[in-house]
Amino acid sequence: MSQSLPNIQSGGSLMLSWQVKDRHVLVIGGGSVGLSRVNHLLEADAKVTVVSKQVHSTLRRYGEIEMLESVEARGFQMKDLQMYEEISREDLLKLDLSKPESLDKVDDFDRNQKFALVLVCINDHVLAKQIYYRCKQLGLNVNLADRPDDCDFYFGSVYRRGSLQIMISTNGKSPRLCNRLKNFKIKPMFDSLDISNAVENLGYLRDKLRAEVHPGDDSRTIEERMEWNRKITDFYSIEDWCEMDTNDVEQILKQYPELPQLGTTN
Amino acid sequence: MSQSLPNIQSGGSLMLSWQVKDRHVLVIGGGSVGLSRVNHLLEADAKVTVVSKQVHSTLRRYGEIEMLESVEARGFQMKDLQMYEEISREDLLKLDLSKPESLDKVDDFDRNQKFALVLVCINDHVLAKQIYYRCKQLGLNVNLADRPDDCDFYFGSVYRRGSLQIMISTNGKSPRLCNRLKNFKIKPMFDSLDISNAVENLGYLRDKLRAEVHPGDDSRTIEERMEWNRKITDFYSIEDWCEMDTNDVEQILKQYPELPQLGTTN
Repeated sequence: MSQSLPNIQSGGSLMLSWQVKDRHVLVIGGGSVGLSRVNHLLEADAKVTVVSKQVHSTLRRYGEIEMLESVEARGFQMKDLQMYEEISREDLLKLDLSKPESLDKVDDFDRNQKFALVLVCINDHVLAKQIYYRCKQLGLNVNLADRPDDCDFYFGSVYRRGSLQIMISTNGKSPRLCNRLKNFKIKPMFDSLDISNAVENLGYLRDKLRAEVHPGDDSRTIEERMEWNRKITDFYSIEDWCEMDTNDVEQILKQYPELPQLGTTN
Repeated sequence: MSQSLPNIQSGGSLMLSWQVKDRHVLVIGGGSVGLSRVNHLLEADAKVTVVSKQVHSTLRRYGEIEMLESVEARGFQMKDLQMYEEISREDLLKLDLSKPESLDKVDDFDRNQKFALVLVCINDHVLAKQIYYRCKQLGLNVNLADRPDDCDFYFGSVYRRGSLQIMISTNGKSPRLCNRLKNFKIKPMFDSLDISNAVENLGYLRDKLRAEVHPGDDSRTIEERMEWNRKITDFYSIEDWCEMDTNDVEQILKQYPELPQLGTTN
């Protein structure tokens, strides 16, 4: 009857990579906090709309060179939360999902009309709280800067090299320490490796394995592919993966389903 | 006219700490993927409901010792997506937010009734896709395991020490490499430091600063507090913060708004 359970450390956050590529995101407030949010969002290819009476000069410049979906240099209005919605929420709920055209409408609403996230970066706490409630009524994910209790999610310090991203969080205890850990611990370690090359090599290997070397969608094929992928990733050191090029990866793939003899790639 | 803009590397994800403490989260599918999702969710104190015909023995055990909100050992039904909702979506949209009782209803719906996240971990792709569309119609955030195009968010490899969490992502290119970077780079570096003590020290300092040493909610006070907090965090090395105890932090706070003379804490 005795069973060993995983050791769960509660009290953490759920760390997730949010997919906002080509999705609308609303930033209310165009000061320095708004700018920092927008920079994060642009790295993730979101379609960003900024609404703010005062707009930071960098945000204005982003607007001029069309990096943003829209810059509305005016006071916020509650209807801005549904700026791109073309179907009413009531009609959306009425759609019969057994009809293919309903699925298209739902998809279009989700991918092209609603705000995936709403970021409120203004000093007017009364207005901010009103926006919060309206977001909750509409089912929109929202973050109020400096109001941790009114946030569905927090931002952290992120180290980035190509496709590699490392986020450091202290669950709100010390954002400044996150920043220092990034600059003095993570950065020196990963800057000294050509780690984005390792990521590209392994991404290439995985794609080619799925598309050409061992294609198929049944669960046995998937399991075989994943198993070899795990083994081959572990077969070389991280440093080896950093130093390889596409030719080396091709040589490794040729030996599938075997693992290479040591020394075959160098 | 020339203006230097931040260097934006597009093609990334938006990395966020999601707040699911005491929020309902639905996991559909109780196999090994479902279990791994549940473990992540329990670390973040979510109220987890699992619906699955087959339930992994560990999940069953979690259910028995009441670590989960509910384990429904049966086939999924579409109405499960609204299992805890007490107000209809139509009525929710009709609420007049100028009335205080409406705000309570919206808050209760958001915090206690709707699923903050829905995680689909089943092999039946047709059913999974139907669940996806229904989630989108209801405005629920959803992740379909192994279907990156049908996900609002992805999971990554997470290193955890107390309140410190570090997530490593390669934007889907090589989850296995994330795992190795965690085990062979991040873990040795941070395990050798008493880093969770540093986080606790800085969290204590920040709370005490706000509550006792320099309280107040006006923007000038906030700015002064943040400025000193930044300076004091940078004044000592990361290793110093790891080695201090609460008495040392108290000594530092006594000198506010000055910075300590070097050598005062050791």
